[in-house]
Amino acid sequence: MTDNTVSQNSKKTGYAPDISTVFVRGSSDEIQVPFDCLNLSNGEKILSYTVKGVKREVPLRKKWIEARASYGKGRTQLELAKAGVITPEMEFVAIRESGCYGDDMAFTPEDVRKAVACGHAVIPANICHPESEPMIIGKQFSVKVNANIGASSLSSGYAEELKKLHLALKHGADTVMDLSTGIKDLMGLRNAILRGSPAPIGTVPVYEALDRAEGKASDLTWDLFKQTVLDQARQGVDYFTIHAGLTADLLPHAAARTLGIVSRGGSIMASVMMRNNAENMAYEHFDELIEICREYDVALSLGDGLRPGCIDDACDDAQYGELRNIGKLAARCFDAGVQCFIEGPGHVPMDKIEENQRLQEQYCNKAPFYTLGPLVTDIAPGYDHITSAIGGAQIANFGTAMLCYVTPSEHLALPDEDDVKVGLVTYKLAAHAADIAKGLPNARIRDSAMARARADFRWFDQFTLSFDPMHAYEVWSRKMPENCGHEPAFCSMCGPRFCPIRLNRALQKKYLKQE
Amino acid sequence: MTDNTVSQNSKKTGYAPDISTVFVRGSSDEIQVPFDCLNLSNGEKILSYTVKGVKREVPLRKKWIEARASYGKGRTQLELAKAGVITPEMEFVAIRESGCYGDDMAFTPEDVRKAVACGHAVIPANICHPESEPMIIGKQFSVKVNANIGASSLSSGYAEELKKLHLALKHGADTVMDLSTGIKDLMGLRNAILRGSPAPIGTVPVYEALDRAEGKASDLTWDLFKQTVLDQARQGVDYFTIHAGLTADLLPHAAARTLGIVSRGGSIMASVMMRNNAENMAYEHFDELIEICREYDVALSLGDGLRPGCIDDACDDAQYGELRNIGKLAARCFDAGVQCFIEGPGHVPMDKIEENQRLQEQYCNKAPFYTLGPLVTDIAPGYDHITSAIGGAQIANFGTAMLCYVTPSEHLALPDEDDVKVGLVTYKLAAHAADIAKGLPNARIRDSAMARARADFRWFDQFTLSFDPMHAYEVWSRKMPENCGHEPAFCSMCGPRFCPIRLNRALQKKYLKQE
Repeated sequence: MTDNTVSQNSKKTGYAPDISTVFVRGSSDEIQVPFDCLNLSNGEKILSYTVKGVKREVPLRKKWIEARASYGKGRTQLELAKAGVITPEMEFVAIRESGCYGDDMAFTPEDVRKAVACGHAVIPANICHPESEPMIIGKQFSVKVNANIGASSLSSGYAEELKKLHLALKHGADTVMDLSTGIKDLMGLRNAILRGSPAPIGTVPVYEALDRAEGKASDLTWDLFKQTVLDQARQGVDYFTIHAGLTADLLPHAAARTLGIVSRGGSIMASVMMRNNAENMAYEHFDELIEICREYDVALSLGDGLRPGCIDDACDDAQYGELRNIGKLAARCFDAGVQCFIEGPGHVPMDKIEENQRLQEQYCNKAPFYTLGPLVTDIAPGYDHITSAIGGAQIANFGTAMLCYVTPSEHLALPDEDDVKVGLVTYKLAAHAADIAKGLPNARIRDSAMARARADFRWFDQFTLSFDPMHAYEVWSRKMPENCGHEPAFCSMCGPRFCPIRLNRALQKKYLKQE
Repeated sequence: MTDNTVSQNSKKTGYAPDISTVFVRGSSDEIQVPFDCLNLSNGEKILSYTVKGVKREVPLRKKWIEARASYGKGRTQLELAKAGVITPEMEFVAIRESGCYGDDMAFTPEDVRKAVACGHAVIPANICHPESEPMIIGKQFSVKVNANIGASSLSSGYAEELKKLHLALKHGADTVMDLSTGIKDLMGLRNAILRGSPAPIGTVPVYEALDRAEGKASDLTWDLFKQTVLDQARQGVDYFTIHAGLTADLLPHAAARTLGIVSRGGSIMASVMMRNNAENMAYEHFDELIEICREYDVALSLGDGLRPGCIDDACDDAQYGELRNIGKLAARCFDAGVQCFIEGPGHVPMDKIEENQRLQEQYCNKAPFYTLGPLVTDIAPGYDHITSAIGGAQIANFGTAMLCYVTPSEHLALPDEDDVKVGLVTYKLAAHAADIAKGLPNARIRDSAMARARADFRWFDQFTLSFDPMHAYEVWSRKMPENCGHEPAFCSMCGPRFCPIRLNRALQKKYLKQE
């Protein structure tokens, strides 16, 4: 990881936000949780959740994982939580969510253990990915954002994907899915991503399985699929999207849709089922998948192969039928001690968003919900980060625990680096808006500091407090007149002549003294 | 107005969407309502509401306005609606909202008359702005979007503002507010805007009044204010934002806020009140304002001088106290036969959005609500078109009739042309998402056509159906390989090797035949 202060330095202007890294110590020296510290010009310091990661000589979780066998109470966070064990990962997460350690914690380590123990929250942390900094996905915690990266046969190479990984972390991706397909050294690229990522890494193993079958659905056997899953688990992948709920009886419902199946993984599964006239192999062999996941503590992200690809297909028998199947699979995961969460939405009109969350909780016993958007209209390609952030903010407010970002290129092209940045900032602000609306403790700290900075014309503090400081600075400075001073008491919106913010000083002087 | 087909032609590529103008005739040849006709490659033609306007020898409403005196039943749309008169404007609006004339209309001219007569909807149409194409603002109709343009002393000139006007119309602004201040020939610029705009034009007259007082709040007398209002009414301004609800008793509440007053108009009113130790002159002389508005049929947009400027100031005594005042002023407008609507939000957390709509309807007897955003977090400057579209889509779904757009430059700089475009497309998609969620008749027609075009790989039809065809085309084409044909059955997201959409054909072939 590069240091933020350096990496965000603008080449054009020399401007960089004043952000440093501070650590909050837990119950021992081994538990040191990094935060961004936003240093404001008035001396205020605002601690902020960070995913950028910290360079370490020894991977953070190495010792914790080695010690796990000694508990003798299981391997996965879920098994240990059920057994009453508070793992170092749980304590780390509690500090991360609270911004502090001790009596003031909004979430104690025991709160985290309980949430994991009942399956309402998940800590995706493969025992072969010791480099990861533990994070938690669950309705009661802050809303998380996943970024997809990945090379395809048509474009994007190895180096470009690693750049995207670091860009995703810089802009706040809580987890990253590597969706690479069709390149030569998938395993090598994934290994580089895992070793460099403090964020949990997710994959869709059937993508690689199809590559190993040289693109022929008929050659995609269960043995090949299982071997792919096992190889990826051993590399350290933290969660697998598996489309095991897409059973054969649902295919006629999918066929009746305007847009059928739009999930790539779901489509591959359906293709294999149709070629071989067989049931979904991941459904049939689900216990074997569970066994691998339990062995490495990989979380299962139960994939929605039948997510609706257009407004007209939303909330139909295909989508909800699959969700019912997934609910049953989630119960099997839970009983086996394997952490799981549930994938959802796609294209859903706003009046159906609450229903989606409600049915998911009902069918899946409140396992965390992880949704793509939803996109609330079909007719804005090029702006689908926005159509989907509108839906995403709402479903997160209703209880969805993690949002999968959508970039401006959705429906049109493979995202480039700028798309990754814009997609992430858009989703971070949507997730943050939901944290505020849910009334999470401390959710408003940065907003309140921003309001005070605006009242004081502390422009550079405003940039520091922003989701994208460089961009805010550049928009502001582009239009300011020369020689207007470092922090002028106006901006180019109203010009220097009449500024409402300036009037407020007179207002406060007159009325606050009277009180 | 330029023809869309020509103006959208890409200089780089020669691509242009196939969009023509068609007219739907009403009860006579005088009522011809233009629509965009999206011509798809499979022969489908999708009619779409358009605001671009049509070049006419004689202004559209000239005869209608001249005939009005002959009714002898009043001058304003509200007076006439109360008297049972269906004006040509009402019929025009009914066709516009329905997309047709005759038995299939979703809204009959009588539906429109009723909505106007009870004050639940407004047709802003100054009798001195005959060039305008009538449109309606009301909860039961499609959600509208306003774009702000305007020169300031610091930047932006006459020609640039006219360019912004045409850009705003090209991208779907239903109304346009001219917020120019601090330039030499305000009246001249406004006249050029009015004569060139088929969309209703709104202003905040106190901006010009302050300019006439040479920026000195103490010189801003009622006579000067009233004369400004009268001059603007005579020019043809269709609605005035007047901050008459910001009464002196509310100033201490504003002073107690983190960010006090952030509305520029509200701030000017407060400044005048403080300097002169006087009550709000627009509140005191409200009957005189009503009289001018009745004379010219100017709608009053009752301004929220105390809209919250940060999450922490939302929904406080200042905001809701002003809203209660505004409700009483709205009742006076209604009784006097003057159309009015109500301005609201600013920065509001998502959990308070429904409450804002509910209280507005309660206090203001369901006069239409017109909100800025709301912005659902404070910490994303540079992305506030998105933070506010997230809130805007939600409040529109709850019943807000018109959204005032926010551009990416909000809080940082005066918007440039690209900001105007991005702000508008963002708000159009948010408004459209609300139309879908509200279940408005025909709201999904374009979405359904888009889904079918996606299923068929009709890429160019997808662009035609988009809010921003040129942009969608450019994102798509940038990454497509050379020599892949005009409409390849894949895109660069997955590459040519495995495309879910292609699999759907096999799916349908197998299962739809069996049924």
